[in-house]
Amino acid sequence: MLGHTYDGEDCSAARALEVVGERWSLLILRNAMFRGYTRFAQFQGDLRIAPNVLTKRLDKFVSTGILERRPQPERPDHHDYVLTEMGQSLKPVVMTLSAWGDRWLTPGPAEFVHSACQATVEPTVHCPTCDAAVPPAEVTTKRVR
Amino acid sequence: MLGHTYDGEDCSAARALEVVGERWSLLILRNAMFRGYTRFAQFQGDLRIAPNVLTKRLDKFVSTGILERRPQPERPDHHDYVLTEMGQSLKPVVMTLSAWGDRWLTPGPAEFVHSACQATVEPTVHCPTCDAAVPPAEVTTKRVR
Repeated sequence: MLGHTYDGEDCSAARALEVVGERWSLLILRNAMFRGYTRFAQFQGDLRIAPNVLTKRLDKFVSTGILERRPQPERPDHHDYVLTEMGQSLKPVVMTLSAWGDRWLTPGPAEFVHSACQATVEPTVHCPTCDAAVPPAEVTTKRVR
Repeated sequence: MLGHTYDGEDCSAARALEVVGERWSLLILRNAMFRGYTRFAQFQGDLRIAPNVLTKRLDKFVSTGILERRPQPERPDHHDYVLTEMGQSLKPVVMTLSAWGDRWLTPGPAEFVHSACQATVEPTVHCPTCDAAVPPAEVTTKRVR
């Protein structure tokens, strides 16, 4: 947890950050999402993250429901960590971070594609009423409860 | 910085996280984006973040170009912190985090709207070739360099 430091916050973004906002969390998930990693050694080798930290992150993702632990077919006492639908649903977070980094920091090295047709895709904000793309400056919030 | 711990990473999402991935960073920016905060005391009062941490975050946002420091009209020795276009461009990151939290944790209390018409908006992934919404499981990456 980012501690219970965000506990005073009644905000979905803050709640999401309590689950995925810690150091390494989103990069571990990026590797599960886009590099097909499922094993402790893969995550560990790629990020060179301390094993105890990686264990903590994976355990938390499993308890939250972002990853599912499955016995490895050839070594049932070892586990694969597989993204659930809840975990897959975090892809747009990584995509928007990446799109921002591409535009404002350094582009690449990867782009996102639709697996069915290989077309480049990115998250966009479209207004159903105006039938137009909404620039960030025109997005505001309204309270619903 | 999330330290230079992500330095081995050649990845736009990792680069973005070096700039906005630290504790409090995205919540400070959320308040600038959607609550109209511009002043140190506003950020500090809302998040109850330690002043030295807040100073560090704001200074870094200014040096990165996410916020711009402007003298306050009535107290020119004090500053407003105003989102730049680079900072506005981070709205989709907060929106995707929030959409995920809404769906998988607890919904609300806010939703995003298009300021021009008040229609609810959210980031979506649309394939220009298939002219269809792309579910997260169908998003993959390809290297471009």
